[in-house]
Order: sequence, then C-alpha cells, then structure tokens
Amino acid sequence: MSRFFTSRYEALTPYTPGEQPQERKYLKLNTNESPFPPSPLAQRLARQAAGDLQLYSDPECRALTNVAAETLGVEPDEILFTNGSDEILNFAFMAFCDETHPAAFPNITYGFYPVFAKLNRIPYEEIPLRADFTVNADDYLGIGKTIFLANPNAPTGIALTKDEIEKIVASNKDSVVVVDEAYVDFGAESVLPLIRKYDNLLVCQTFSKSRSLAGGRLGFGAGSKALIADLRTIKYSTNPYNINRMTAAAGIGALTDGDYFRGNCEKIAAVREKPAAALTELGVVLTPSTSNFLFAKHPAVGGQALYLALKEKGVLIRHFETPLLRDYNRITVGSAEQMEEFLRILKTVLEELS
Amino acid sequence: MSRFFTSRYEALTPYTPGEQPQERKYLKLNTNESPFPPSPLAQRLARQAAGDLQLYSDPECRALTNVAAETLGVEPDEILFTNGSDEILNFAFMAFCDETHPAAFPNITYGFYPVFAKLNRIPYEEIPLRADFTVNADDYLGIGKTIFLANPNAPTGIALTKDEIEKIVASNKDSVVVVDEAYVDFGAESVLPLIRKYDNLLVCQTFSKSRSLAGGRLGFGAGSKALIADLRTIKYSTNPYNINRMTAAAGIGALTDGDYFRGNCEKIAAVREKPAAALTELGVVLTPSTSNFLFAKHPAVGGQALYLALKEKGVLIRHFETPLLRDYNRITVGSAEQMEEFLRILKTVLEELS
Repeated sequence: MSRFFTSRYEALTPYTPGEQPQERKYLKLNTNESPFPPSPLAQRLARQAAGDLQLYSDPECRALTNVAAETLGVEPDEILFTNGSDEILNFAFMAFCDETHPAAFPNITYGFYPVFAKLNRIPYEEIPLRADFTVNADDYLGIGKTIFLANPNAPTGIALTKDEIEKIVASNKDSVVVVDEAYVDFGAESVLPLIRKYDNLLVCQTFSKSRSLAGGRLGFGAGSKALIADLRTIKYSTNPYNINRMTAAAGIGALTDGDYFRGNCEKIAAVREKPAAALTELGVVLTPSTSNFLFAKHPAVGGQALYLALKEKGVLIRHFETPLLRDYNRITVGSAEQMEEFLRILKTVLEELS
Repeated sequence: MSRFFTSRYEALTPYTPGEQPQERKYLKLNTNESPFPPSPLAQRLARQAAGDLQLYSDPECRALTNVAAETLGVEPDEILFTNGSDEILNFAFMAFCDETHPAAFPNITYGFYPVFAKLNRIPYEEIPLRADFTVNADDYLGIGKTIFLANPNAPTGIALTKDEIEKIVASNKDSVVVVDEAYVDFGAESVLPLIRKYDNLLVCQTFSKSRSLAGGRLGFGAGSKALIADLRTIKYSTNPYNINRMTAAAGIGALTDGDYFRGNCEKIAAVREKPAAALTELGVVLTPSTSNFLFAKHPAVGGQALYLALKEKGVLIRHFETPLLRDYNRITVGSAEQMEEFLRILKTVLEELS
C-alpha cells in the first residue's frame, strides 16, 4: 500500500480469481471454462472486427443488444451488456444498495459479493445455507433487503427452482432481487421471463461459461426498463466504452449460433453424470450440481491435500480455504476425454494418499 | 430512474461520449480516432486470440505487461493495464482521493474528471485556465490536492512542458499528481521517465489514439510500485478480468510494431499543420494544439451553428455546449485526404452561413 492510498479502501480484501498459471500446461478444471471453443461464427465475426479497431466501439452496443433482445425475448432497453458479468454485478451493488438498502446473500456463494459490498461500503447480511448446502428460500421472504442469489449457487452447483425464486421476488416488492445466472444453462431454470412481471427483478448472465467466451469478457443484466436505465447511469459514469468491438462481434455470433450453444450445454450436462457416478463410487460426497462443475468432498482426504496432490500431477481444480468450504473442492466438468483423464489421475492420487 | 435507485447517485450526470452514429456514413472527425488501421501485427495477434476465447484471459496481463515494460522502459510492477484509460482514471480517483484528499483539475479539461469525482463523492476544485486557455502551472504549486492534468489538455490541445509538470509534481510531494497523456504522442513531452524520480506521479496513457486501438479498449497507468499496488487492489475488487484476450494480444502487437506507431504519429503531426494554416486563413481562431485535434472558433459563426451545418453535410466534429467552450469546436486531425475533404466542405458551409 502506498502512503497515498485512501483510508476508504485500506481494509479491502480483493477477490482472488482462480489460478491462471502460464508456466506449465495443466488439465485445467479450476475456473469453469468451457471445453469447447467459441462458435465458429463468433470467431469469424471477432476476427473481422479486428480490422476496424481504430474506431471506437458503439457505447450503446446497439447491434449486439438488438440480437440479444430478439434471441432472449426481451426489449433492447431491458438489457445492458457489460465487461463480463462481474461488472453488471458491481453496477447492481452500486445502483441498488446503500446504508438504507443493505445487501443480503447466502453465506456460501460467489465470493465476489462481499467484496463488491465492501468496495461500495454497503452493509450486508450473510444468510446461512442449510447443513446440506441448500438455500432455504423461506429465509429470503419479505426481508426488505437487496438480495443477490447465484442460481445455481456457487460453488455448490445447487439450484433453486423458478417457483422458489419467484416467491422471493414477489415477497420483496420494494427491494431489488438480483439473480446471477452464470451457470443456469447447464440444467437449472432461468427466471429471465419473469422480468416483465416484476419490476424489482434483475437477471444477470455471462457469456463466459455456456457460450465459450470467458476470454472475451461479456455479460449482461436484464430487467425492467427503469432498472436498466439506472444501470446505464452507472455505466456512463464509469466506463461508457466498456465493450470492445471484437467482443461485441463475438457476442453476436454466440447468440446467433443457438444450436452450437444448446448442443454444448447438453453435452456438458450429459458428461457431468459420468464423473459424478464414478466419484460417488470412490466414496466422494457430491452436492447435486446442475452446473458445469462438481463440488466434492472426500471422506478421508482433506480438500487442500487433494488439490495439491492433483496439482502436482498436472490437474488444476479449485480449492477454497474458507472454514465452511475447505473440506471440498470444485471441479469443472470438461469434455468426456478430460473427465476420463481426471478420474484416472484422481485414482492414482487417492491410492498414494491413503 | 427506478424507484430502487440509490440516493447516492441520483444527482449524478453521466459523461456524454461523442456521437457514434450508425445510421449514416460521416466524415468522422469528432472522437479523435486515428485515420490509420491498427498495426498489421496487432490485427494478426488479435485474430489469433479469437480462437481461444473459451479460456479466461490472464488477469495479471503478464505477456502484455512484460512487452510494455520493455518498450516503455519501466518495470512490470510499475504499470497496470485497464479497459481503456477511462478505467485507470476512475481507479485513480477511487484510490487517491477522498474527503480529506480532494481532487483538483482545470475548469476546462477532459469532461470525465468531474463525473468521476461525483461518482466517488470526492470534493474537487476546478482551477480556471488563463484567458488564452493555457494552464498556469503556478496555480498548482504546493496545493496539496490530488491533481489531474490532461497533457496536452482537452479539448484545447495545449500542452505544458515536462519542466512545468515536474515543478507541479515536486511541489506536491504528499499528494498524487495524475498526468493523463492520452494525446501526448503527437508532439508533447511525456513525463513517463519521471515515475522513477517521484513516488507521487501517476502517468496514464491510452492505445485509443496514437496506437489505433480505440475499438479495442486498452489503457494503462504507470507509477511507483506502491501506487500501482493500490490501483491493483481497486482492479481486483471491481473486475479482475478487465482485459480480454484479443485486446491484450492487439496491445502486444501495437507495442512491438514501434515503427508503425511512430510513423503514424509523425504523419498526424505533419498533416495537422495544413488545416491549421488553412483555417487561420479563413479567420478561424485556433489554440496551439500539439495533439491529434484542432480546437477552433470562427469569428462570426457560432460553434453550434457550424457543428450542425457540417453535420448536415456529412461531417461530424465535436461540439461542447458548456459556456466556456460553446464558441468552439474540436476537429480531429485525420488523414491528409480527410482534411482536404473537411476544408472543402467547411468552405461551402461558411459561404452558406455568412
């Protein structure tokens, strides 16, 4: 810290992203990336855009927004694109929380929520999960706080149903409910259609997982026109040109190539079952994940020991050193081949450790 | 505004970017874009990166940072890349200003500074320019505030010398001085080499102008390791993956292809003289710009009238409707051909208006 750093942020602990090691090639199952490349159309449009980079991108992202509106069944002014979904989540904390509108989210969820809250000096409540890591929807009924729910939840992969979320939204009519659907496309139910019914619902999605654009940085929020207008005020006061030309073009390709997107989601959901069954057979405890990752605890081997032993053998999974999570690890569901390789190495490692 | 919007930001007036019209093809001289495409190497590397977008970008931007460090003569931990230079400027407001460290900047300068200050609820002082639009360096000596100086200044194009800026930095040892060098490559002096001498100096640059990457969104801040560490804390608490893979790759190309970059800067500086002379001959008053734009006032035709008449004829220039600026317009220096076309249409317009 420099002697010039403001006291406002001196106690801030930044978010720690998953490792992105450059020095060695790993079987990389630690950041929930897609095993599939971006759609051929997304790649082609991004490459075309690389020739025009001397011109600013459209801060309104009109072409992308129009395609998204049509694909997702919303109006263009009901959606706002951002530089990844982290940016729209931060904007939502900025726009809809303050001293009199504290935030609330589960005590186990996406680790960035408390960072956004602290960054923006927003009081927040962390609501405990049940012992089985499920969210109890009843805990959120009529609480009158700005609610952030990752659905499916991270890093457990467990989803609430659409009906449970609707109950939460309906019971908090005077507070915004933000549903972070980063992992929704692999088997959970999206509440996107409900944005027309509830003016207090903001749905956030990312192109990083199901649309194979983690390295492109694209996400969005969808909600009532008034909510989106608020988020636009924040965007135009921070970084109006937040989406570059190539990413906007890739986004158009990814949305247009719907068959490729749906096919990949189905493949991941199908592949997920095999390692899940194999792990269960090995005595590993799993949460019922509807996402593109598994959340797993070995009955005898500690979470960190397993993570380190796998890393040693060239396999990266995600370990969280927080008390409630440290017995577990999060394992991205990759391709069928990657999962076979993972299971093969895991068996060796478990033999060595036990 | 929705009924949920926080009172913190309800008085915020967002920044208004220059028009990016999609409906008609204009001779576009309103946002200081380069008339030259990105370097062929930048384009090639960006296109290559489009195939790997399923993987996250490196949040550390190590490859890009290493190339930049070598090219610019700094250490990798003395530089931080951001999504355009707007983002590093906002980070600097966040990191180095607060109630007890107010900001100070000229009353005529980049219009985003007061927006960043208001966004972050930072008190600020706007220090008047002299009547000839020059910054009086003496006004900034020992003022003990966090100083933001665009050099050359926007939208006047007038630069302080390196010595004048050094005096300001040296006289405010307990405050950060941010020098925004968005337009420095077209003829002004960079103070980048001074970051080793002064731990309170942050130099910001963008790839949007001289490196033909406005649509790629890339900027950086360079300063002492401690200042950069503070800015990293902000980055990792807002959007760690702020740079996508294609832009990072394009940035490496733009830095590596130094001859292309320098050649384009020289061309712009050379082209600038011709329209400047022609405008002076037409009675237009110009500030002495060392940037890639001219700031011009016609003795008889109002700024807005001229802007609108040119727009009608398919030429876009930038008009600012603020009292101190509204007699003027800002005109990007494009290619020699674009400037000839501009002068031809301008003469027609002036004949029609007078």
